[in-house]
Amino acid sequence: MCRWLGYLGSPIEPRELLYDPERSLIEQSRRHAPDMAVPNGDGFGLGWYGRREVPAIFHSATPAWGDRNLHTLASEIFSPLFLAHVRAATGTPVQETNCHPFAWGRWMFVHNGYVDGYEGLRRDMLLAVRPDLFPNVKGTTDSELLFHLALTFGLEEDPIGGLERMAGFVESLGAAAGIAEPLQMTVGVSDGERLWAARYASGPVVNTLYYSADVESLRELYPESERFAHFGADSRVVVSEPLAPLPRLWHEIPAGTALVLGKGQAEQVPFRPRPPA
Amino acid sequence: MCRWLGYLGSPIEPRELLYDPERSLIEQSRRHAPDMAVPNGDGFGLGWYGRREVPAIFHSATPAWGDRNLHTLASEIFSPLFLAHVRAATGTPVQETNCHPFAWGRWMFVHNGYVDGYEGLRRDMLLAVRPDLFPNVKGTTDSELLFHLALTFGLEEDPIGGLERMAGFVESLGAAAGIAEPLQMTVGVSDGERLWAARYASGPVVNTLYYSADVESLRELYPESERFAHFGADSRVVVSEPLAPLPRLWHEIPAGTALVLGKGQAEQVPFRPRPPA
Amino acid sequence: MCRWLGYLGSPIEPRELLYDPERSLIEQSRRHAPDMAVPNGDGFGLGWYGRREVPAIFHSATPAWGDRNLHTLASEIFSPLFLAHVRAATGTPVQETNCHPFAWGRWMFVHNGYVDGYEGLRRDMLLAVRPDLFPNVKGTTDSELLFHLALTFGLEEDPIGGLERMAGFVESLGAAAGIAEPLQMTVGVSDGERLWAARYASGPVVNTLYYSADVESLRELYPESERFAHFGADSRVVVSEPLAPLPRLWHEIPAGTALVLGKGQAEQVPFRPRPPA
Amino acid sequence: MCRWLGYLGSPIEPRELLYDPERSLIEQSRRHAPDMAVPNGDGFGLGWYGRREVPAIFHSATPAWGDRNLHTLASEIFSPLFLAHVRAATGTPVQETNCHPFAWGRWMFVHNGYVDGYEGLRRDMLLAVRPDLFPNVKGTTDSELLFHLALTFGLEEDPIGGLERMAGFVESLGAAAGIAEPLQMTVGVSDGERLWAARYASGPVVNTLYYSADVESLRELYPESERFAHFGADSRVVVSEPLAPLPRLWHEIPAGTALVLGKGQAEQVPFRPRPPA
Repeated sequence: MCRWLGYLGSPIEPRELLYDPERSLIEQSRRHAPDMAVPNGDGFGLGWYGRREVPAIFHSATPAWGDRNLHTLASEIFSPLFLAHVRAATGTPVQETNCHPFAWGRWMFVHNGYVDGYEGLRRDMLLAVRPDLFPNVKGTTDSELLFHLALTFGLEEDPIGGLERMAGFVESLGAAAGIAEPLQMTVGVSDGERLWAARYASGPVVNTLYYSADVESLRELYPESERFAHFGADSRVVVSEPLAPLPRLWHEIPAGTALVLGKGQAEQVPFRPRPPA
Repeated sequence: MCRWLGYLGSPIEPRELLYDPERSLIEQSRRHAPDMAVPNGDGFGLGWYGRREVPAIFHSATPAWGDRNLHTLASEIFSPLFLAHVRAATGTPVQETNCHPFAWGRWMFVHNGYVDGYEGLRRDMLLAVRPDLFPNVKGTTDSELLFHLALTFGLEEDPIGGLERMAGFVESLGAAAGIAEPLQMTVGVSDGERLWAARYASGPVVNTLYYSADVESLRELYPESERFAHFGADSRVVVSEPLAPLPRLWHEIPAGTALVLGKGQAEQVPFRPRPPA
Repeated sequence: MCRWLGYLGSPIEPRELLYDPERSLIEQSRRHAPDMAVPNGDGFGLGWYGRREVPAIFHSATPAWGDRNLHTLASEIFSPLFLAHVRAATGTPVQETNCHPFAWGRWMFVHNGYVDGYEGLRRDMLLAVRPDLFPNVKGTTDSELLFHLALTFGLEEDPIGGLERMAGFVESLGAAAGIAEPLQMTVGVSDGERLWAARYASGPVVNTLYYSADVESLRELYPESERFAHFGADSRVVVSEPLAPLPRLWHEIPAGTALVLGKGQAEQVPFRPRPPA
Repeated sequence: MCRWLGYLGSPIEPRELLYDPERSLIEQSRRHAPDMAVPNGDGFGLGWYGRREVPAIFHSATPAWGDRNLHTLASEIFSPLFLAHVRAATGTPVQETNCHPFAWGRWMFVHNGYVDGYEGLRRDMLLAVRPDLFPNVKGTTDSELLFHLALTFGLEEDPIGGLERMAGFVESLGAAAGIAEPLQMTVGVSDGERLWAARYASGPVVNTLYYSADVESLRELYPESERFAHFGADSRVVVSEPLAPLPRLWHEIPAGTALVLGKGQAEQVPFRPRPPA
């Protein structure tokens, strides 16, 4: 099980979320947690929007906790929108091309979960990727194919719809192959302006997903906290696991639900897989 | 342009060919040569037959010249049959899953060359791989697909035929895409008992391939050479580039020709690409 | 806290101890255990005696659990004496030169533990290394210096004595710097014929160390076990943590004790740090 | 022989010097040149001053030419002062801690050259490093020790003087050990405001060093060049090898000379090794 986080708001150093909190993402990559059978030590990635329209992506196939380049960049970067991911491989090789976020043009994507029976489904998933997107598939993970399938099914015009059709496609592929619960996922997607997240699984056990309360409420709850003082009013964090055990800081996103974060916007909508048509 | 070598004969330490000669494979990986525009520093591999039926494969994405593990293994291993490869990437990522030799069961394969227009042809090549072989495609190179296409087209029953049909398939795929000269290749293949090599290209410029004279002749030519004294009578080396500038040591394999090396056997046969049927 | 194991006996594939047991060394590198705060994912090493007098050393700075080369070598190697180590860095960089085993001539060495206040003591430890050994210090860990100090203080002539003087030296260095408990260690050392291990710490908490019961007893205890059937009568395993929860399989080595394993020999002796004289 | 470059001027993307020129630093790392026996494929580094007083350092032990992270950062970063280095190892391991630039507080340092007989001199060089600087020595190269010796001998107060005393120290150490020509170096140093460079060797063969003409002259020489149009008037580049064969673009710095670059300043001064006092 991987871990990821997304941030949207006033520009900050990623360090504030990757390293500083009590249960920061980097801590989560190596510390044991009740649901964490193995460490998230099979590579990591940080994607951020900076000076350009396209995201800048930094990948490494080594554990995040010992990486000095990540430590440096997390303090040097100052960004209003970024995604970070620590990986626990589920069968595919540990290499940079298998690290998240995956990118296409202005878009980037992270995933926590798996496609059950992926080895058998991979060929059909790959064939379903739109041929012009095909050369952008650089690695061999299920996650990268989920992203390219969502792109194939219209992610750029309709992000939630593209993700729903991708999930529907995987469900039908799995059903045809006799796989009981083919899809497990929380995903994060951004185009540099907004951040979408979704929580879904074929079966009853669904990986967790949370987002932070609005900053005004946090300031009232924790008037003495220096951390919340300098975050902008619109800043939001989406995480696969809470970064700190502060009551009322984190809202759990229900299974079968997507979240849309934008300037002054934090909206939950249903997430319903459907056939690609 | 990559470099590779194959050895078949009495067991030796790979070091004798990888490190010791004046222009050893490792030297070739970093030293400039007239035809070498860039170094072969994008990873390497050593595959050898040892205690088991299947080859043991050691891959690294770093330059061979600085790798201490390779240096150790090349002296520790003692093998009658091995293939070694140093890579110069031609567009695909530098990672272990893109390193040669590629393996399948008892078989292993190395390649020097490229498929012209690979980015556009990759999808069709991948689709043509036999579905049961598909999960064995772990990387993203043209070379790995050439091997899996040859397996698809019967390499295991008829090695030269499988390679010829693979070449024919790539030629027809290239022709359909309007690519003038789609294939450039020297390849080495082994099943642990014999070693096949082939030299072919669509156009008039063909990567080089050589094999060593029989050891008896070498002993007559170089009676004082300690090196040839302890090689067995049947030992043969196949190389993309000569390892030493000794006259009459190396026979050039003509373009459009394959070589079959076995116990006491060193036979040249025509290599003629043909449709997979 | 690192993990390591040593094997001495009839030749086996390291895989039998590294991968196969329920709590194999590779499993230990990633699975949570009550005393394991963080994974042992900061590189690994395997050193074995094979065809040569000197040990062959394979190092990698990546986590052991995902390393395909280690997986291959562990089945291809067949050795009567080897040491394997998985690292959890305690402040020094994750790189191959910081991986165990460390080697000098026929000798190799692994360590689990640390020198408290190492950053402040490193310079004095380095200065105390015998100048002719100095160029063999390739990394920056406390462990590598412990080995070179033991060599400086006579390890090759008197293994236990060399280790005791090394420990005594670190104790006195620590005392001079006001460090309450400078040394925490279990170590394994071999010259290719015998295997020495020691368990010691300055304070009351001492990292664990175990060795396996003699094979005859094991066969009586577990008559149906295929595993013990083919191990030679003299085979012994030393481990930082038991590889399987079999009652009476593992003897705990008491703190302040060393173990000497040789052909038909398994002897415990006191381990008493003393000044280097 | 390594290659490096330094830039001081109006903020630019490092890509403009690392990738774009005909003989860019990255091209130099892999393309053959008459004086380049081997490729500069043993790691690289980029250090830049950005949002903070201290430089941000990005290191990798892989060849620069295939590194996707460097390619991304070189376009994402926008900096008025940076140093980049591609390494050809001269005996010490290929690892991140041996990559340039080396840093200390606000300072960073790159080196092209070597200390002859380094293996024998290393211990004495290391002992001469000021104890409070000692923990900052993370790798094992001669270059890193040259930097820490210069710091020991006053680099921060008097950059050229600190470098001269470092060189004098190495000369005397070499003389005592009977080494004819102990030092070969071009170095680049910065504190975030100015950039110092020096060219020196014990013997008559001295690695090259160049700096660019002032931008006004360049605009007169190449009025049509878009490149020079947007560089600020004070921008300067220091390089071990010219990045493009444009006549009058590059001034060679004579052997035994240092260069001081600052805002509107480009001054050559003598470089005379002297005892540390």
